[in-house]
Amino acid sequence: MKVSKFGGTSVASAEQIKKVANIIQNDPKRKIIVVSAPGKRFESDIKVTDLLIRLAEAALNTGEAEEELQVVLARYEEIAIGLGLDNEIVEVIEADLRERLQLNREHHELFLDQLKASGEDNNAKLIAAYLKSIGLNGKYVNPKEAGLWVSDEPGRARILPEAYENLKNLRAVDGVIVFPGFFGYSKEGTIVTFARGGSDITGSILAAATHAELYENFTDVDSVFAANPKIVENPAKIKRMTYREMRELSYAGFSVFHDEALMPAFRHSVPVCIKNTNNPSAPGTMIIAEREYIQNPVIGIAADKGFSTIYVRKYLMNRELGFGRRLLQILEEEEVSYEHMPSGIDDTSVIIRNHQLTEEKEKQIIQKIREQLEVDDVFIEKGFAMVVLVGEGMHNTLGISARATTALTKAGVNIEMINQGSSEVSLGFGIHEEDTDKALRSLYEEFFSMKTIMQ
Amino acid sequence: MKVSKFGGTSVASAEQIKKVANIIQNDPKRKIIVVSAPGKRFESDIKVTDLLIRLAEAALNTGEAEEELQVVLARYEEIAIGLGLDNEIVEVIEADLRERLQLNREHHELFLDQLKASGEDNNAKLIAAYLKSIGLNGKYVNPKEAGLWVSDEPGRARILPEAYENLKNLRAVDGVIVFPGFFGYSKEGTIVTFARGGSDITGSILAAATHAELYENFTDVDSVFAANPKIVENPAKIKRMTYREMRELSYAGFSVFHDEALMPAFRHSVPVCIKNTNNPSAPGTMIIAEREYIQNPVIGIAADKGFSTIYVRKYLMNRELGFGRRLLQILEEEEVSYEHMPSGIDDTSVIIRNHQLTEEKEKQIIQKIREQLEVDDVFIEKGFAMVVLVGEGMHNTLGISARATTALTKAGVNIEMINQGSSEVSLGFGIHEEDTDKALRSLYEEFFSMKTIMQ
Repeated sequence: MKVSKFGGTSVASAEQIKKVANIIQNDPKRKIIVVSAPGKRFESDIKVTDLLIRLAEAALNTGEAEEELQVVLARYEEIAIGLGLDNEIVEVIEADLRERLQLNREHHELFLDQLKASGEDNNAKLIAAYLKSIGLNGKYVNPKEAGLWVSDEPGRARILPEAYENLKNLRAVDGVIVFPGFFGYSKEGTIVTFARGGSDITGSILAAATHAELYENFTDVDSVFAANPKIVENPAKIKRMTYREMRELSYAGFSVFHDEALMPAFRHSVPVCIKNTNNPSAPGTMIIAEREYIQNPVIGIAADKGFSTIYVRKYLMNRELGFGRRLLQILEEEEVSYEHMPSGIDDTSVIIRNHQLTEEKEKQIIQKIREQLEVDDVFIEKGFAMVVLVGEGMHNTLGISARATTALTKAGVNIEMINQGSSEVSLGFGIHEEDTDKALRSLYEEFFSMKTIMQ
Repeated sequence: MKVSKFGGTSVASAEQIKKVANIIQNDPKRKIIVVSAPGKRFESDIKVTDLLIRLAEAALNTGEAEEELQVVLARYEEIAIGLGLDNEIVEVIEADLRERLQLNREHHELFLDQLKASGEDNNAKLIAAYLKSIGLNGKYVNPKEAGLWVSDEPGRARILPEAYENLKNLRAVDGVIVFPGFFGYSKEGTIVTFARGGSDITGSILAAATHAELYENFTDVDSVFAANPKIVENPAKIKRMTYREMRELSYAGFSVFHDEALMPAFRHSVPVCIKNTNNPSAPGTMIIAEREYIQNPVIGIAADKGFSTIYVRKYLMNRELGFGRRLLQILEEEEVSYEHMPSGIDDTSVIIRNHQLTEEKEKQIIQKIREQLEVDDVFIEKGFAMVVLVGEGMHNTLGISARATTALTKAGVNIEMINQGSSEVSLGFGIHEEDTDKALRSLYEEFFSMKTIMQ
């Protein structure tokens, strides 16, 4: 059996959901379907999740949110009509939303989470109803009833080990299970949402728990590309890649897959396939445990903006046992995690993602470093990007860094930082944000143009 | 005025000490002379410091050390005769050594330190006597009497701030002060020795305290070379370099100067000159605060063997706030300091110097990492070398890393680690030890051969 997850654009409209039904029909192994909330139908459209946030905020701020509720219901109604369903399912959804709006509003975050999670939950009910209506025996299954227990960390829930045993029983359910992504339940029975990419996480967990032969992840692209097609013209399609490669690429800016989502599949050795709902016959990209890498040592190049550097200088720093540890401790106290920490003799830079910093935190960090570590100098610099070459073959190929640095130099990109040395499958460069596109293009040219491959 | 320090080979024999006297005579500004213990006169010779260690060990182990004592005295006597001094100075030295041998032997380390320090101390007395005998008004000054107060950390003493005030008074002393290097006194009056390169530290401290216009460091080479002359044929001489450059180079294997020794001079802006006792008219190498760097962005290339890597892998490590801090904490508990810490998403390597590890510590570290951090994998790999390019101009020059990685690749050197990103004046490569010489030669060829410079 297979677990198939359909992302927001794949379930955004009646037309899309019909494609989903076709895909399910075409392969009887597709037994568990994980769905997102309806996403954007066109560039300027608003996702249902965002409509639900507006609804929740209106309710919290003014106590009155009927208008916002109607906007949400209109989306579901339009889909239901398009799918030829009667009004019963819309009534179910309306009742559900009105019930959620009655929930305790004192804990804003919790209230918001309950409403956000309804996007996936109600879409699953709707899609199950549609599958039933066309004779596919669709069955909506609620995460609570299935025993998808998670830790009580709103917005970053982690699955509890016991949940796997519960979810295993889904194998025995008759028909096509339609399961909402994005959230689970704490042992106290409260909805708790996963991190960004939450529906991917749900799909991956279900695939792992049911020992699926494949976890299919349907999106709106034919495959994962070797570089961002918005920047590099017509980039190569990746046919097969390893979990490690996918993780490194999504960490460094590939938005196809949230890296955390791969963990359950990886841990339970379930292969993953990225496919296109709009072109299901395309082979897609397989993500597996191992692959051969004869042709090209580099499989993909990612680029991500939004990094900052905390620069710290102190004479004889390298003689001071515990300096690095104390520096990281200060960041930890401020709940800031770091990406890399290149170090000289008398200086260390800590590279972090901007989104972790606020003006207040920056001030706190600088002040603590200055006072507790008695440094000669400390400052935060922004505007960095990381460009990362990824590939299983890189470690065994001489001269990757020479080719990469030469390509960057030819493109006039100043290399501020190089991260090589721990991961065997990646080589990262810290550069200025404004150089990101030309860095990506020049590296792509070096490692993927025919000229290079033919050499 | 100038402070001039003479190393072991510069004061190893009567002949050498006569050169020192000539050097002092040639410049009346040379007011404070810091001396080492007599060093090697020829390749297979034994340094007096090593003879003193034998003496101390014999006394500790057998209680009887007359033979070893006579060997030490014979060295001083030979020098005294060669300098035309009568036996009085040898008797002073003999009495001093016999007195030290009577000291409390319960604290082995302290007893050893007292005897080791006598090498410099008695040589200073001898040289002062010689200077007096030739009419140069030599004056032996003892560190205790001068107020060279240090922290009570045998083998790694640090100067106490108050000491600077005391030592300032040396400016007012008439004649040529001869001051023993390598040790100071704790506030309790005990001899405490400095780290490796201790006489350099003494010289640097005195130069800083007396606001000398120059700190001269006399050795047996004409200058600092851009690369190790034992590996690179006829390397370029460095005329001027900055403190930072010298520190980076000595950290990474240049043995001319112990990096810690530069601190006092650097902090008090005293320029340093490395000169040759055997060829004092050569200009030597000046170490200063700033320099122009128009010709070559790289000033020197250092290589150092003896590094190990602790490799740690854990899935989703980068999501675990505090992981890096806890890893460093374990090393800190074992009193192991780290050099670099390159990190991937799921793995981190910590690069450390081998000499910090014992079999016992390795086991401890591995076990603690495994148990406390619950990692998927951890192991220690040995046999790494660091090759470091140093130069003030590097940060402003595009393509340094491209040229360096290309040169290494051409030489068939696999780059295991790149450290770039914090220090503006250095770029380091982790490689396998067996590649060290070819790496150094290929980088030298790239950055220093005429061909390259002429381009």
